[in-house]
Amino acid sequence: MFTPIKNTKVYEQAIEQIKKMILDGTLKKGDKLPTERDLAEQLQVSRASVREALRALDIIGLIESRQGAGNYIKENFENSLFEPMSIMFMLENGTHLEILEFRKMLESEAVALAAKRITDEDIKTLEELLYELKACNDEKKSSILDKKFHFTIAKASKNLLIINVLEVTSQLMDEFIKDSREKILAFEDNRAKLNEQHEMLYNAMKNRDVESSQKAMMEHLKFIEDYICE
Amino acid sequence: MFTPIKNTKVYEQAIEQIKKMILDGTLKKGDKLPTERDLAEQLQVSRASVREALRALDIIGLIESRQGAGNYIKENFENSLFEPMSIMFMLENGTHLEILEFRKMLESEAVALAAKRITDEDIKTLEELLYELKACNDEKKSSILDKKFHFTIAKASKNLLIINVLEVTSQLMDEFIKDSREKILAFEDNRAKLNEQHEMLYNAMKNRDVESSQKAMMEHLKFIEDYICE
Repeated sequence: MFTPIKNTKVYEQAIEQIKKMILDGTLKKGDKLPTERDLAEQLQVSRASVREALRALDIIGLIESRQGAGNYIKENFENSLFEPMSIMFMLENGTHLEILEFRKMLESEAVALAAKRITDEDIKTLEELLYELKACNDEKKSSILDKKFHFTIAKASKNLLIINVLEVTSQLMDEFIKDSREKILAFEDNRAKLNEQHEMLYNAMKNRDVESSQKAMMEHLKFIEDYICE
Repeated sequence: MFTPIKNTKVYEQAIEQIKKMILDGTLKKGDKLPTERDLAEQLQVSRASVREALRALDIIGLIESRQGAGNYIKENFENSLFEPMSIMFMLENGTHLEILEFRKMLESEAVALAAKRITDEDIKTLEELLYELKACNDEKKSSILDKKFHFTIAKASKNLLIINVLEVTSQLMDEFIKDSREKILAFEDNRAKLNEQHEMLYNAMKNRDVESSQKAMMEHLKFIEDYICE
């Protein structure tokens, strides 16, 4: 009856080894992994353990299996199936206020870095999103555009950790934006106010003005705070 | 030959369902999960798929299997085997400077919140760590104490997302602290400087002084910046 424990240890070791190969640079983005058989030989574990390890890495969104072609380290991690941070936050009964504190921290720094590093292409994307947001009458779509607008700014920070944190809390941000927009837009005047705030942000980014960008972001998030207090 | 793909879809569905049960509050921290058999019935998938899903959740560190007693949602996520964020950062060739930008953002906000929310117990922990750090002659141990000191401050922020972000980048922070301490301590005078900076931080926290806390943290991190530039 001790097989399960032994198995656990073995596939954990297999994952640890693959992790090491990534951390020491042996495996890179887009690289093909050795075959199951080769991995089993290299790691000196059974093929069943290798399969379990690969499956878990697939679920986490680190590798992708291409039918008949083997396993590859993913090129991008944007649509990772699993978001441990969102889930942990829900399990620990996190509040909207904590998300807002976090957004203030993350986005006021992101916008400052972005104001220095934003590309013309990023600015064009922001402009298009702003235009679409103004024209949009479907709240479900507006909520998605709103998130895209904020994520575009964060990505323009060119800081991988800031960008990755947003990816791993994506689901949490979706819910937060949806809920807070609902509360804010219960007052019809607020639609114009949100548009104005996004436009202020866009203009500050376009001018690559660090101070105005940060100010616009903080004003926007403080406005939201008034509506989400629990 | 199409079984693998079908399997993938099925266990992904099983995970999605378990995720939903967590997000809607059906499953809480420490809760026992239904048995494999019950889950298979509820989710209308095979027991093999349920087993795969559970194994993946175990690897991710969301549940724990207790031998003979079933599967439980974990009580704490501090020692999650898997850190997607650390791994993604390595795969995308992140730099020390990006980690420092991120630490500045995270820790200057954490310290400000902590100055308002720190408990007497947290202060005592910080005091003990400061004392141990000063007395420690083993650099490997010092590096761990240094990290603990910073994590204790971040935890005192009582913001779950800030705390969770540090957990999911823990390995990255270990490496960063180890490397930067090495570079800094190549100059013997710097040992006293690091001790001073940590003491300044401790004093500001003890006085629950938001401004001095933030100032001490930024000075500390700017000092590090001079040594890690790549």
